[in-house]
Amino acid sequence: MIGRFITFEGPDGAGKTSVLTALVPRLKALAQVPLIETREPGGNPISEAIRQIILDPKNTAMDPRTEALLYTAARRQHIIEKIRPALAANKLVLCDRFVDSSLAYQGAGREIGVAEVAQMNLFATEALQPDLTLYLDVPSEVGLARISAHRPDQNDRLDQEALSFHQKVRGEYLQLAKDNPQRIKVIDATQAIEQVIAACQTLVTASFPEMFRG
Amino acid sequence: MIGRFITFEGPDGAGKTSVLTALVPRLKALAQVPLIETREPGGNPISEAIRQIILDPKNTAMDPRTEALLYTAARRQHIIEKIRPALAANKLVLCDRFVDSSLAYQGAGREIGVAEVAQMNLFATEALQPDLTLYLDVPSEVGLARISAHRPDQNDRLDQEALSFHQKVRGEYLQLAKDNPQRIKVIDATQAIEQVIAACQTLVTASFPEMFRG
Repeated sequence: MIGRFITFEGPDGAGKTSVLTALVPRLKALAQVPLIETREPGGNPISEAIRQIILDPKNTAMDPRTEALLYTAARRQHIIEKIRPALAANKLVLCDRFVDSSLAYQGAGREIGVAEVAQMNLFATEALQPDLTLYLDVPSEVGLARISAHRPDQNDRLDQEALSFHQKVRGEYLQLAKDNPQRIKVIDATQAIEQVIAACQTLVTASFPEMFRG
Repeated sequence: MIGRFITFEGPDGAGKTSVLTALVPRLKALAQVPLIETREPGGNPISEAIRQIILDPKNTAMDPRTEALLYTAARRQHIIEKIRPALAANKLVLCDRFVDSSLAYQGAGREIGVAEVAQMNLFATEALQPDLTLYLDVPSEVGLARISAHRPDQNDRLDQEALSFHQKVRGEYLQLAKDNPQRIKVIDATQAIEQVIAACQTLVTASFPEMFRG
């Protein structure tokens, strides 16, 4: 892989979507190589179909391990159809969520076990790792309050989970950042969004100066 | 688990379906406890939806690891919704295919690696193992000839695979039987079907005499 693989992580309500919407055009304007933005399921029909099963509110009987296997299957196909080919073509790949999300949500949040979820993801990724991960950190109460304020119409199965679930998710993200200080950079997402965007931009361009116009 | 868990395995064309159709009513007539027959996806909506994705002939872009993860997800949900509750209720559970199929088809046939597929299945089964596995063995040429003779209308994605694939599948089944002689019993499925059925019946009743009328 000769491109650069950058992932964005954070609990619900951290503001990832708003940040990426503003950040991507700015990075594109500075990049010396093609930049693509993606997120699981990544637009391929197989992963889209898998995601529909996961998010169907009718599927309340879904076991947590079934869910984890399905997320991993969708990830695998996204890697094969989009991420790997883009990296091989020397592109910058910005991805909204990746393995860390499964470790935080399924491993810790659903209490399946972080080590077991990591092992399963290794099968799916064949050790493909992000070169840089920006983790947008926000206290669970703040994140949940943002969700209910900004997305009152959205009520999929994951958003029905309780505060304690989101606290376990955040706890695991912070642990991952502690264990992987070179790869994962923590950004305080309680700041004004302009500050968060600027912090992300600086971290990306400073991490890969050869890919951006000075 | 206090019931008994019996699985049936074999390459395509081994005659599992015909054997089970005849065998199940005979075993039911002899059993002292309730007996259920099942197969993945097991009739639950989540696993059925997963299976639709796997078998959709349009999904030719499906990576072998994606496929393996999807089979494992469907298996997990089938265990949770049907197999575990039946065993807990002291039933005899006859299941058409289980983990050995993934080891043979994905691990060996698709060359993902048997050890890696076994590891992933351990995550899904939490070490639930069949008490007895009947492996219907048939040379690949014979199995494929039976398929094209008996099911000319069926042409799903798996049946499009070549002879060499089926030979790898059979080779792994035979290896598994060699490695697990207590659990896996090999039955020569080139015999007349009545002989195959009789052999299966004898093996099941002799393995669990406490569950059947003498």
